[in-house]
Amino acid sequence: MLRGARAAYSRGRMGHFRDEIFEQPASLGRLLAADRGPWRDAAAAIRGRGVHSLVIAARGTSDNAARYAGYLFGAANRLPVGLALPSLFTLYAAPPALAGTCVLGISQSGASSDLVAVLEEARRQGALTIALTNRPAAPLARAAEHVLDLQAGEEHAVAASKTYTAELAALALLSATLAGDAARLAALETLPAAVAQTLGLAPAIALVAERFRFLERCVVLGRGYNYATAFEVALKLKETCYLIAEPYSSADFLHGPMALVERDFPVLAVAPDGSVADSLREVLAAAAARGAELCVISDRADLAALGRTQIRLPAPVPEWLSPVTAAAAGQLFALALAETRGLDPDRPRGLAKVTSTV
Amino acid sequence: MLRGARAAYSRGRMGHFRDEIFEQPASLGRLLAADRGPWRDAAAAIRGRGVHSLVIAARGTSDNAARYAGYLFGAANRLPVGLALPSLFTLYAAPPALAGTCVLGISQSGASSDLVAVLEEARRQGALTIALTNRPAAPLARAAEHVLDLQAGEEHAVAASKTYTAELAALALLSATLAGDAARLAALETLPAAVAQTLGLAPAIALVAERFRFLERCVVLGRGYNYATAFEVALKLKETCYLIAEPYSSADFLHGPMALVERDFPVLAVAPDGSVADSLREVLAAAAARGAELCVISDRADLAALGRTQIRLPAPVPEWLSPVTAAAAGQLFALALAETRGLDPDRPRGLAKVTSTV
Repeated sequence: MLRGARAAYSRGRMGHFRDEIFEQPASLGRLLAADRGPWRDAAAAIRGRGVHSLVIAARGTSDNAARYAGYLFGAANRLPVGLALPSLFTLYAAPPALAGTCVLGISQSGASSDLVAVLEEARRQGALTIALTNRPAAPLARAAEHVLDLQAGEEHAVAASKTYTAELAALALLSATLAGDAARLAALETLPAAVAQTLGLAPAIALVAERFRFLERCVVLGRGYNYATAFEVALKLKETCYLIAEPYSSADFLHGPMALVERDFPVLAVAPDGSVADSLREVLAAAAARGAELCVISDRADLAALGRTQIRLPAPVPEWLSPVTAAAAGQLFALALAETRGLDPDRPRGLAKVTSTV
Repeated sequence: MLRGARAAYSRGRMGHFRDEIFEQPASLGRLLAADRGPWRDAAAAIRGRGVHSLVIAARGTSDNAARYAGYLFGAANRLPVGLALPSLFTLYAAPPALAGTCVLGISQSGASSDLVAVLEEARRQGALTIALTNRPAAPLARAAEHVLDLQAGEEHAVAASKTYTAELAALALLSATLAGDAARLAALETLPAAVAQTLGLAPAIALVAERFRFLERCVVLGRGYNYATAFEVALKLKETCYLIAEPYSSADFLHGPMALVERDFPVLAVAPDGSVADSLREVLAAAAARGAELCVISDRADLAALGRTQIRLPAPVPEWLSPVTAAAAGQLFALALAETRGLDPDRPRGLAKVTSTV
């Protein structure tokens, strides 16, 4: 098994998903080096128009970025964050009143017609509108007053990687700019190097993934800022390995699905250090006590030690930025698991790059 | 198999989960017959204080009621609905600013300390607070300005049934009262009879459940108002049958997890008639074309016909109330599946009735 993993890794496989994972230090570097004008303008508009809450329109991977935004803008900017329910704007033709809110559309392609419909209606109602997209000329961008360009470069892989971390970083940059927080702005600059260090885990992660060659289902746990990461890692596993991978807040997990855990039940935990780490430790210890097959992604020795396997994150980053490095580790895990199963993550069954929803 | 199912049904099994499912016409009747004063007062406060959005604090089953509320108050009352992220109030000690919002705490037991913390902080900030609970003397109720008593009677089962439909009905009553909509208030009165009719499906549902004796995993699809039902049915299957049951918006399902669907992949679809039915039909037809083992819960013949098996809902109710009857059908399915697998839904592994989260 060891030899298999090493061989698979050293074979120097190519592919869009793999390439784009390893592009992330560069793509994040571009985002942080780009003109900050649009971020300052968007932040000034949020302040100037007395916005009382954010409403986010997103689907798929970008929906996970929206989950991150709930913790980020809630904690750092005191803004409540809600999700737009696109079908209220399209199929039901009964949109909520959005005056006083800032509506953020998040979409790599900027092409989803239902998200465009949300932004158009929000703008018609006089709400502040911002598009985060990798295609600043796309319909979503044209529908919004402010456009934040993800600068991630063309994404070819069906399973998103570099655009997800670009979305997180773009949101983090907007939050820090809005808060006028110099320490946070400085911390952001460390992200490309921290992600590069995380990508150095690839060989170690490939060894861990070997063990899960025949995995059919698992749950992925996270909490707080990394609730989003649990969803994103589960989505990558589904997209690239056809696993049933169910994401949970570790708090909600205790309320019900813990009943599913018996000996050898596979649990992947996203557990970087931070305010929620002690609470996560309790849940992980309980799962371990029930005999779960626990794999822990963490920079904390005590949490990692609870796992039968562990992915030790290097270089601690502040908790509010840890979803970027933790997501990169999760991408590597999905990539390695797909490769060890002989699957091509660039050719998932039944998936197209843009799905238009009405 | 037929004989087995009939025997199991006619054996007249008892148990809290079963009893409480069948109590729902009575519990809903009590709720609708109770003093409307608290609902009128809460509605008047929402209007009088110029509330611009709702923020809901809930966990588990009640979180699914919150999902329903997003469509209900969005479409009927034009109020955007967001979810409180309790850990922002507890572990992070960084709550968002809630002035101008109405914060609803939804909890059967009213005992979850993190939800109480959300309501206490909201009240401290001057936000309007409302508790929906089955225990009007519980801490959650004491923390709120307004209390809406679910009137469901003591719930003994670990897997919630009658308190879930009571939560939906209580939210529907608040929405209709706030809208001053006499037609909706009249439609609500038909709910107990519609649920009683749905419960008459028990023998037919037991026959369908036989087919899934060895089911290990499935997805549950819904959209719009019944997005909540997909989550709730999946939760019941997890709580009572230890299945991996993953809920999806049918729209999100197309964006990724459709890749999982191959021949015999089990899909349960909650698809009552309404504005989203045509969109659901497309997704179900695509899943059927890929050979999915599709079971459709619907009152519409064309949608039901897409399934290899079907649960035909009787007595169409308006779409905004269909999550109540559809949930009842889903409860019966979970109950029958547990029974046919020899599981006792009243003794799930590793679950306690109240889980306190910090």
